[in-house]
Parts: sequence; C-alpha cells; structure tokens
Amino acid sequence: MLQISQRGLEMPPSPIRKLVPFAEAAKKKGTKVFHLNIGQPDVETPPEIMQAVKNADIKVLEYSHSAGNESYRRKLTQYYKKVGIDVNYDQIMITTGGSEAILFGFMTCLNPGDEVIIPEPFYANYNGFACAAGVNVVPVTSSIETGFALPPIASFEQLITPKTKAIVVCSPNNPTGYLYSKQEMEALREICLKHNLYLFSDEAYREFCYDGSYVSAMHLEGLEQHVVLMDTISKRYSACGARLGALVTKNKAVYDAALKFAQARLSPPGLAQIMGEAAIDLPEHYFEAPKAEYLSRRNLLVDRLNNMPGVYCPTPGGAFYAIARLPIDDSDRFCQWLLESFSHNGATVMLAPATGFYSTPGLGKNEVRLAYVLEKASLSQAMDCLEAALKVYPGRI
Amino acid sequence: MLQISQRGLEMPPSPIRKLVPFAEAAKKKGTKVFHLNIGQPDVETPPEIMQAVKNADIKVLEYSHSAGNESYRRKLTQYYKKVGIDVNYDQIMITTGGSEAILFGFMTCLNPGDEVIIPEPFYANYNGFACAAGVNVVPVTSSIETGFALPPIASFEQLITPKTKAIVVCSPNNPTGYLYSKQEMEALREICLKHNLYLFSDEAYREFCYDGSYVSAMHLEGLEQHVVLMDTISKRYSACGARLGALVTKNKAVYDAALKFAQARLSPPGLAQIMGEAAIDLPEHYFEAPKAEYLSRRNLLVDRLNNMPGVYCPTPGGAFYAIARLPIDDSDRFCQWLLESFSHNGATVMLAPATGFYSTPGLGKNEVRLAYVLEKASLSQAMDCLEAALKVYPGRI
Repeated sequence: MLQISQRGLEMPPSPIRKLVPFAEAAKKKGTKVFHLNIGQPDVETPPEIMQAVKNADIKVLEYSHSAGNESYRRKLTQYYKKVGIDVNYDQIMITTGGSEAILFGFMTCLNPGDEVIIPEPFYANYNGFACAAGVNVVPVTSSIETGFALPPIASFEQLITPKTKAIVVCSPNNPTGYLYSKQEMEALREICLKHNLYLFSDEAYREFCYDGSYVSAMHLEGLEQHVVLMDTISKRYSACGARLGALVTKNKAVYDAALKFAQARLSPPGLAQIMGEAAIDLPEHYFEAPKAEYLSRRNLLVDRLNNMPGVYCPTPGGAFYAIARLPIDDSDRFCQWLLESFSHNGATVMLAPATGFYSTPGLGKNEVRLAYVLEKASLSQAMDCLEAALKVYPGRI
Repeated sequence: MLQISQRGLEMPPSPIRKLVPFAEAAKKKGTKVFHLNIGQPDVETPPEIMQAVKNADIKVLEYSHSAGNESYRRKLTQYYKKVGIDVNYDQIMITTGGSEAILFGFMTCLNPGDEVIIPEPFYANYNGFACAAGVNVVPVTSSIETGFALPPIASFEQLITPKTKAIVVCSPNNPTGYLYSKQEMEALREICLKHNLYLFSDEAYREFCYDGSYVSAMHLEGLEQHVVLMDTISKRYSACGARLGALVTKNKAVYDAALKFAQARLSPPGLAQIMGEAAIDLPEHYFEAPKAEYLSRRNLLVDRLNNMPGVYCPTPGGAFYAIARLPIDDSDRFCQWLLESFSHNGATVMLAPATGFYSTPGLGKNEVRLAYVLEKASLSQAMDCLEAALKVYPGRI
C-alpha cells in the first residue's frame, strides 16, 4: 500500500470550507444563503487596475524576476512610505498571495520542531503553513471579554521555551477585527527583543482601521531585524483572486534565504503584478469609499447583534470581521443547522464556527465569526435570519 | 543573534541564475548576450489566450475554488483526452505553475528523511522542493554516451533502500531533451510496482516531441495509484509568467491530502486560469508551428555543435534543450569566462554549466546545457560565438 506523508495526514482541512456541502444542499432546495462565512469582499476590484491588464501589450508572457518585477517593487516603496514604512525595493519580495509570504517566512526562519506563539483565535491557515514547515503552533488565548485584546505579556512569557522562535501577530485581526494599539505593539517589541524572537506580522487589513490608528510592526524601533511583514493586495484592492502578496523584511539573511525559495518556484504571477503596479497609481482618496462602506456595515452588524437577546459582540476596530458570542450549545452544530434545517423568508445565513480559529480544544463553541462582506440590505436580511434562528434553535442555552 | 532555519541555509540557490551578474556586466560594456541559458521561449504567447483575459468582464476578482475553477478543470479533461490521458475533472488540481504541483506532490507523499530517486542530470529546482519538504534526492546517473537514456534498472535497484518512496521522471527531459521510450517507461512501471514507489512525472514538454512518440506515465497500465503527474502551461503555450500548472492523479488519498495544501493557500491565480481555459479552444493545428520551429532550431544547433572540433552533442528527441560535451576544463569557469572575458563581433553567448543539473559532485564539468529558445538567425550567431570561443578559451583541453 502506498502511504501519504505524515504531514499530509496531519494537514488540517479548511475549517471554513467544511460547511460548503451543506450550503450547496440548501441552495439546491431553493434557500437563499447569505455568505458571512468567508472574507471574500463584494467591493468592486478597481476598474483601473483591471484595465491596466487589458492595456498591457504582451507578446510573450515571460517569467518575471523571482522577487517580482523590479518596477513593481520600486513603486511599492512609494506605497509603503505613505503608510509610514520606509523600505528599499530590495527588501520587498513579491509573493503569490499573502499565503506564500507566510510559507516563505516559516520555511526560512523556523526549523521543524520549533514553536511559534500566536494569539488565538487566529487565521486558521497559519496551521496549514505551520504543518507544511513542521512547526508547532502554541496558542495564547485572547478573550471576547476584552474584545480580543493582546493577552498579558505574562501569558506569553509562560509559554516561551528554548524552542520558541517567533510570534505571529495580525492587526487589524482576522478573525476578531481587533486593532492592536501602540502600547500592545510595543509590548510585543519588548518580548521579541528580550527573547530574541522573530515577529511575523500579517497586515492584510491595514487599510481598514476604524477606531484608533494603525501601527505596523515595521514602525517598531529597534526591531528591524526581527520583523517579517506578510502582505497582500487581496483585501486592499478587493483582488483576492489575483494571488499577489509580498514578504518585506530588513533582515538581509532572511531575505536572501527566502529568495532561494522564491527562485525554486521561478516567479510570482505575471498578470497580477501588472494589477499591483497599477494600484499604486490609484488616487489618494481611493480607500475612502470602501472604508466608509465597511464602517457602516460594521456598525449595522454590531448593533443588530448586540440587540439580540443573549448575544454579545465587541466592536471590532478594523478589518471586516467580528466574533460574536451566541446563546448556543455548539457553534459547529448551530452553523450546520442554519444550513440544513432552518430558513426565514426563504433565506438563511452561513457563518464560520469560531472553533476553527482556536487551537485550544473546546474554545469557541459558543462563538461565530461574521465577515461583513455583503452590502447593507443583504447584511440586514442576514441579521433577520440569525435573529429568527436563535429563537427556534433547539440547542439554545 | 536571530538564526535562519537549517533548510534556509541548505536551500540551493538557482544554479542558472548565478551567472546573471556577469551577463549584466557584459551588457553594460555593450556586448550583446545570446541567452541560451534559460528555458524562456521567444515563441509568442497565443494572442487568443491573452485576448480572453482582455475580454473577461470581471467586477470582483474573487478567490477561485482551491483546486481551480471547475469549468477549467472540466475543459482540461478534453485536452488530456487528446493526449491519451483519461481523467476526471476531480482528479485535476490547478496549481500555481508546475512548481507548486511538484511541491504539493513532495509534501503530500513524502516524509522528511524519505528518499526520491531522480535520473541525473535533472531540473535543478527539484533540489529546492526536496529541501523544502526535507526529502533526500538520490541521483542515478545517465550518460551523454547513450544520449541520456534511462539508466539500467539494475542501477535503480542498487539505490533502493527502505526510505525510497518515489522516482521522479521528466520526459521529454529538461535538461537533456531526451525522450523516454515506451520500453523505458514500462521499465519504470515495473520497478515502481515491485518496490511500491510513487512515480512523479514531470511532463512540462509533452507537446515538443520530434523523434519517437510521447509516452505519459498516465498511459502505464496498472500504475494508476502510483502516478502523480506534474504539469504546466508554461512551455505548452509559451506562458511561463502566467504561473499555471496542474497536479493530476487517480490516487484519491493523494488528491485529498494535496487539496488540504491547496486550501491553505486559498486558490491558484485567477487571470491565468482564464488563459488556461481559453487555450483549450486553440485550433488543433496550433502546436504545429512552434513544434516545427523548435525542430528546425534543434537541427541547426546539433549540427553546428557536432561540427565544432572536440564537441559532442547527442540529438535530443524532445523539449528545447540539449546538453553538449565541450573540450573544456570546467563548465562553470567557461560560462563565466564567456561573459567576462570574451566577445565575437560584439557578442557572446550565455550557457548553463551542466554541473548545476548533476547531484553527484564533479559530474558535468565538461558539459553545458543549451536552450534553443532563440530564432535561428540569433541561434546561428550564438553558435558562431561558441565556435570562436572554444578556439581561444585558455582552459581548452
């Protein structure tokens, strides 16, 4: 018998996608499904950047430089400058989505058996990349009671072992929407300096901060050699399908080693790089409209949730996610029930059980993640569904 | 001091790209450089498939299915049927280039410490993916004397240990251009069945067979569960920069596990999938022109090489590469010297030292790989350069 590899066995399936068959069955029955389960925005991809691809006169679609087109990397330095990040083009490596930046970061900095501390709940795919790299994820639990603020540094300290090599932070956060404050980012700096840890900073949602201001890991003085920034245009320009990201670091040894992984896969996607480069020329005010739209959706969502009996949802400061606590027995069961056994005015809502975002077994059983990626009329109807569902769900507690 | 990982240290740099700074310096001096060093064809990307992207009316460039758009996978089954490969759409996983198919195959089927046997000389990036997966490459040496035919099965048998889990084969071959015969492919089938090995089959150059006929690993009866096909549109449609490939297997356990790696990175590039899907509709005769062009280039190249004193180049049956034996001391030194210290009528030629394609130290020192990716007038001038260079190279033996 041929065997698949141990990591192939251990690789976690996507917790978000496991409910898909139930959603498909619901649709086949004629039920409308409001998708609040995935971070796929409905915001239009800027027509200017789609047009740039159409305007490109390409005779031969060649490999680009393994680190991405130099012209794009040079223009990206202008973008980063605007958000207070001062980097050279040769400190930027263009990747196939933010996903590949995470993979390259883990592969380059961590040995099999090393440990990486991540505040939970966290983006579930970190588990996948950790598994691919043979790295162990050690969760430090944040709580809905504090709105998912950074856990006390003492909680980190307790988890640090000789195998701890890095902390992963994501701000504004997926899945909680929490926006880390300057004080919290500085606390992370201190602990990384004290224990000589890398700080992997996933800043996919940088543009979407509503309360308080955005602090990049790259803003932290004295931590320049420790920070590996993982970036993407997926959410920034609503271009998830382009698969274009970046790994940014001032640590030359990390950059040079990551470049060898980049060379092995030859180059990042060519047409997407044209989109990325064109995006730098979008007018200054481009982000105002999507940001205002997300903010008003957030307010609608959080208001509606907190007006439902037994429901609590802290107000997220950024991104386009919120985690709510519901009066239910089991979020996996509830989310499946919503699709299998419930409808309200011919519709139902698809949510992500928060269990998939916690590494500690048992946590998140009464929490769900909601992505406010639908326009307000749909979002409001989705909340009608949820409100009605909670009244009749047999597992209500 | 922060450390990079052991695999980050061990990851091999691209052997093809290490001469790039010398080529850049030559160009700065005003020397024309004929690039026969990389497999970047000059053949036009079919305008029809570029046009398909321009015609696409995309409001939001969304994530696709992690295995690729179902419409594209369904159409690909038609393409595979034409080349005698009978697969269902759910046995095809769209990847980010052939590179990612190789990575997913290694990650899914092999454990750290496992061994994979590869006939050398081989595509150097297999080393990179093996390093990423913690897998050991065990070379079995093929020889220029036999035109790089498959080494005797006894040579494979000698190398098999309890850790051997797979054989990698690439036909038509990069870097040798060798086209494996039906008998050779069947010999591989026997050894894979006998020792319960996976057969990873890299078929990037399927369309370019000049002498004899193409045999896919997927044609081998009884080996269905063992074969993992790694494919790409890069060379087929001269679309290297699109980054679109496929992993194809009838082994459901392998497919399902590979899909978890695919889910972690969300989806393959979206615009490239439009190109790939449009390519299936190219007229039947599309491949005739590029194939005839490569064939006439091959004949020119091999003729010229074999007419140079002391040079031997077996006639490659496929792909667009040839390996030639030159009367030189050291191919790395020679290729650098060509760029640094030589010119002929204001031009020089960039070649790939064959040392980078052998895993056994010391092999390939008197061999170079030539990619016939330039039109014949340039190819002929490149041969003029090489001929003149061999007359004056100080390390000639």
